[in-house]
Amino acid sequence: MARDRSERRADEVTGEFDLIDRIRARARGRPDVILGIGDDAALLQVPAGKQLAVTMDALNAGVHFPAETGAADIGWKALAVNLSDLAAMGAQPAWCTLSLSLPLAEEAWIDAFLDGFLELAQRHEVALVGGDTTRGPLSVCVTAHGFVDAGKALRRDGAEPGDDLWVSGTLGDAAGALAQRRVGRAIDPALRSRLDRPFPRLPLGLSLVGFASAAIDVSDGLLADAGHLCARSGVGAEIDVAALPSSAALRAAFDADALRTLQATGGDDYELCFSAPPQARAAVEAASDRTGTPVTRIGRIVEGDGVRVLLADGSEWRPANAGYEHFG
Amino acid sequence: MARDRSERRADEVTGEFDLIDRIRARARGRPDVILGIGDDAALLQVPAGKQLAVTMDALNAGVHFPAETGAADIGWKALAVNLSDLAAMGAQPAWCTLSLSLPLAEEAWIDAFLDGFLELAQRHEVALVGGDTTRGPLSVCVTAHGFVDAGKALRRDGAEPGDDLWVSGTLGDAAGALAQRRVGRAIDPALRSRLDRPFPRLPLGLSLVGFASAAIDVSDGLLADAGHLCARSGVGAEIDVAALPSSAALRAAFDADALRTLQATGGDDYELCFSAPPQARAAVEAASDRTGTPVTRIGRIVEGDGVRVLLADGSEWRPANAGYEHFG
Repeated sequence: MARDRSERRADEVTGEFDLIDRIRARARGRPDVILGIGDDAALLQVPAGKQLAVTMDALNAGVHFPAETGAADIGWKALAVNLSDLAAMGAQPAWCTLSLSLPLAEEAWIDAFLDGFLELAQRHEVALVGGDTTRGPLSVCVTAHGFVDAGKALRRDGAEPGDDLWVSGTLGDAAGALAQRRVGRAIDPALRSRLDRPFPRLPLGLSLVGFASAAIDVSDGLLADAGHLCARSGVGAEIDVAALPSSAALRAAFDADALRTLQATGGDDYELCFSAPPQARAAVEAASDRTGTPVTRIGRIVEGDGVRVLLADGSEWRPANAGYEHFG
Repeated sequence: MARDRSERRADEVTGEFDLIDRIRARARGRPDVILGIGDDAALLQVPAGKQLAVTMDALNAGVHFPAETGAADIGWKALAVNLSDLAAMGAQPAWCTLSLSLPLAEEAWIDAFLDGFLELAQRHEVALVGGDTTRGPLSVCVTAHGFVDAGKALRRDGAEPGDDLWVSGTLGDAAGALAQRRVGRAIDPALRSRLDRPFPRLPLGLSLVGFASAAIDVSDGLLADAGHLCARSGVGAEIDVAALPSSAALRAAFDADALRTLQATGGDDYELCFSAPPQARAAVEAASDRTGTPVTRIGRIVEGDGVRVLLADGSEWRPANAGYEHFG
């Protein structure tokens, strides 16, 4: 973990040197971490026969989370969005690195940030092995590493016409929280929790390996992400809007039209959207049961391209708004 | 490579979607990249018998590079500082991921940024395999991956009393450029080039494997980084200030006292500082010759702790200033 050269020149110097030690003292190892924080690079041992899955996502204050978000929630979410990518690959997470840009090295904030980050890391036995700290606008960049058996990863490009399309959990909750915040309504705590503390669907992702034909995590909104999956697979999809899963909290807070739009286009769900052949339905449901992760069959993969959302009468539904910022 | 969720909501949307394709179209693969940009994670194959070296460093505008730095230079440097960490481990670079935070997705800027980034990547056969693009203040975060033979990495913690202390190249050039800039002098092009386009010492780092006892890259300034190496090794060091290598450009631009301070404490050198037993002197010089990388023996590892800088008469020299910002 490299020290920021600029830090030596400011009053935070001491705090910054402490900061690295503070992170290092709290980071737990794993047997496959040969050398963790404290050298020019971490040294890591990938198990024989495994491929490495690597993903990197940054969160910027005011863009990816509201500026008032608590430090522990920012820490949790910065790791969660990366682990969600590994879940969508069917990868077993192992290690992460963290680049933390901070206007000030404030001890209480950093301790709280690490509380959230490391709580999620330890839940999935992910070792924090390196990174850096820099001075600048609040921004968190994480790289997460995981393992997959060679040739077994869940990719975006394997969906086939005739496959079912599935989604885990419920959709639109995080976007619902942002919509409530935007219009100054009290934010429902259940929705807020989905926004601030997404649970990466790692157990489900691992359980789908072998029979799901393609998968993606829902971060841009279901329609956008199902669209990415279809584009990569060279197929289209039909989604039954009535089938989209919703939470009781979201149904209580929004009318039917807003609800649909949040479910179909809201971002930050961090659920898995995946395809699987119809003969795998029992296997999908068994994976759901085994991992305690609800799944819903929401449509089907078809020939062609693009994602169409269908009403019960078979007519096409289009979201009234391009994104949730128009809610109120 | 994940799309930033926020980007869909702004005018840059189209530019941002194009941006991913733009990066993807220019990123070259390698046989060990099973799946590159375009899925939830990259899939990579570490060769049998190799350990993975991973490092992550971010550069923020105005902190790690002057705001007026050209886009191509920012791209080059963002990768170079990470490859320098791999060089200091004696690792063979392989892959990188890039997280790019930009206020605007401006095509010409991005193309120039990629020119610099990919020029260096291709020089060392490093594949860009993923990352993300986000909206925010200009910031570049890179994670670099390389390979080392198990147990062979150059770590910081192996220096022994009696070892020689060496440094590659010349010291203080980048800090000299910043010092000239700070006082409004014309910046010497040779010094500016050391600031904007550091060359990671990868060939030398690889060639030192097997006989160097410890290594670190000089990014915080020689005294600070030699101090890190000593602290991790549980030893001290003596450095002969007259032995410190300097460029003709630096000697021409600064008086003797400023020169010493720049060499000893200036940052951004991206040279290698390493220790090796005296019986390895011929091997070090052969590695230097073979890789075309000048090296200089600047001192020795001693019992104790801390780094002392000695004048020719054996008295201790202390830098007049804590850092180069005081120059003028």
